Amino acid sequence: MASSSSRTIRLAVIPGDGIGPEVVAEGLKVLDVVAPAHGLAFDRTSYDLGAARWHRTGETLPDAVLEELRGQDVILLGAVGDPSVPSGVLERGLLLRARFELDHYVNLRPVKLFPGVETPLAGVKPEDIDMVVVREGTEGPYTGVGGVLRKGTPHEVATQESVNTAFGVERVVRHAFEVAASRPRKKLTLVHKDNVLTFAGDLYQRVLKRVGEEYPQVTTDYCHVDAATMFFVNQPQRFDVVVTDNLFGDIITDIGAAIAGGIGLAASGNVNPDRTAPSMFEPVHGSAPDIAGRAKADPTATILSVAMLLDHVGAHEAARRVEQAVSADLAERGSAVRATHEVGDAIAERV
Amino acid sequence: MASSSSRTIRLAVIPGDGIGPEVVAEGLKVLDVVAPAHGLAFDRTSYDLGAARWHRTGETLPDAVLEELRGQDVILLGAVGDPSVPSGVLERGLLLRARFELDHYVNLRPVKLFPGVETPLAGVKPEDIDMVVVREGTEGPYTGVGGVLRKGTPHEVATQESVNTAFGVERVVRHAFEVAASRPRKKLTLVHKDNVLTFAGDLYQRVLKRVGEEYPQVTTDYCHVDAATMFFVNQPQRFDVVVTDNLFGDIITDIGAAIAGGIGLAASGNVNPDRTAPSMFEPVHGSAPDIAGRAKADPTATILSVAMLLDHVGAHEAARRVEQAVSADLAERGSAVRATHEVGDAIAERV
Ligand SMILES: CC(C)[C@H](C(=O)O)[C@@H](O)C(=O)O
Ligand SMILES: CC(C)[C@H](C(=O)O)[C@@H](O)C(=O)O
Repeated sequence: MASSSSRTIRLAVIPGDGIGPEVVAEGLKVLDVVAPAHGLAFDRTSYDLGAARWHRTGETLPDAVLEELRGQDVILLGAVGDPSVPSGVLERGLLLRARFELDHYVNLRPVKLFPGVETPLAGVKPEDIDMVVVREGTEGPYTGVGGVLRKGTPHEVATQESVNTAFGVERVVRHAFEVAASRPRKKLTLVHKDNVLTFAGDLYQRVLKRVGEEYPQVTTDYCHVDAATMFFVNQPQRFDVVVTDNLFGDIITDIGAAIAGGIGLAASGNVNPDRTAPSMFEPVHGSAPDIAGRAKADPTATILSVAMLLDHVGAHEAARRVEQAVSADLAERGSAVRATHEVGDAIAERV
Repeated sequence: MASSSSRTIRLAVIPGDGIGPEVVAEGLKVLDVVAPAHGLAFDRTSYDLGAARWHRTGETLPDAVLEELRGQDVILLGAVGDPSVPSGVLERGLLLRARFELDHYVNLRPVKLFPGVETPLAGVKPEDIDMVVVREGTEGPYTGVGGVLRKGTPHEVATQESVNTAFGVERVVRHAFEVAASRPRKKLTLVHKDNVLTFAGDLYQRVLKRVGEEYPQVTTDYCHVDAATMFFVNQPQRFDVVVTDNLFGDIITDIGAAIAGGIGLAASGNVNPDRTAPSMFEPVHGSAPDIAGRAKADPTATILSVAMLLDHVGAHEAARRVEQAVSADLAERGSAVRATHEVGDAIAERV
């Protein structure tokens, strides 16, 4: 429904590397169609961050740019990473820096099999795969704490530390309870490895129990991460909402993407639920340099991330429109090979 | 072929908890048939370790028992863990203590789809899933290093440290190259998360490169753990031999079990290749207390672990006989439900 007065939202766009710019273009194409129809105007600023900038200036996410980003309402990111840059430089310096600095403590990753989408699992129906993974985004093994001693010698020691705080665990667990309470099944599964990582696992368990008392309508259970990966493959129906740490969440959401039709469809939101800084939406996939610039990337994950972005800014009707357009496109997609922009056009047309 | 003189091997048996004793009984049944036919005699000692002992005495793996185990040639373990014991007590105190004290630095886990076995993956053939995961077994995030500060308060901090040494990484990577060099495809994939866990990942990468120079016939590649879990599901053909750290190995071998027909078939060896202490063979599955004592457990994983044990003590012909008997049984198994001892009987008969 078009409205006469429109609300303006400041949107930062970080196309990034590889297929990033291609898929972001399609996400914006869809946004440009749906926004005015729902009384929204996006005031866009594009940020040139990624491999090219690093080569040119040695910068990944400079302080000044970070400050500018803080002034935006929301961020859309394509993908970062390039083989010409040492592994970790852009991931840690740009992507993780943004997640940590902007306090994206909830990394929201829906795992949903849309009708018509092929899954590698035999005999699985769309209603069998419909979950949301709530991945912690600001601590755990992703802190970067650790180091190396006697590098390059036979006596080298390299450490990585997982740091988990009551503060950090409680806020993400509470958010997961909220998500679970809002869904029909109202089931929350903690995924961890508490029989080996006893200190961190015990903290998660105690917080789950304590916060759970405030949500009597939500059933909770626990699953070791190794067993969880197995159940994703042979009993995905087990899961409704999953809460887990930063590293386990990274791993299980890739299996989630695989079972729900591939990484080309997996959307995500790096969310700051307290809105003390802008949230950032991005496809789960990487920059895929092998297919970059050849119009081969599937922009669907980015378009679904745009739907999550719309939900985040309160434009729920617009978000549903985008989701429905994607769903309709997927249902009729079949095995036809389409160029990146053709997929974007088709979805934009349906919106 | 029966031989007149027989070699005696000291075998420690730890049946453990839940279904452990049931599956171990079938493993020993098969061993009893195959051993004499190949000139082997197993001198068995059974160790009462697990939940019952912990409840009775508070002990998990007492020093005196550990010393006795050191005097054995090889160990067969069922499973440990029971809901009546706090999570981690038996896992850390018994299973991991044995792995660490007996220096089981190679945790060998074949992932192989036998003909006739149902996989949850659509359109996958046995030749598509045939790999060996070489999981590091004595360091990484499994060290138990870490702790908790201000427990139970809003200011609690819980840490877990992954400790990785050049010594530890080099020996497991070297072993993985040996395994890869002995297989037709001669391909070794390092699985890690070097873009986030930069210190540990970089150590693994440098060691892979350096040791790889001694194995020019082996091709190497690298895969992030999150992508690897996805490829296990939608491109398992990618993998031949995988080398990875203790935690990533735990996770990916459970997906490996899932795609290769389930945890009831997954065998493993905790191997000390230098033979400074006995190696320990065990099914990948846990104690499954929910089905314990009801003859419902599948002993196949334990029987395949017995085959690995036979290989380890040099009885390769006997190992092949057991594997072939399992393979033949699996090919004809269909969907018939058989009791634990019926499966053991059927395989023992074929040996
Ligand atoms: C690129 C990498 C740092 C990132 C992560 O590990 O979080 C990615 O895998 C993801 O899941 O968003
Ligand atoms: C029981 C547990 C400690 C163990 C592990 O994490 O190594 C198990 O999951 C395995 O894979 O053998």
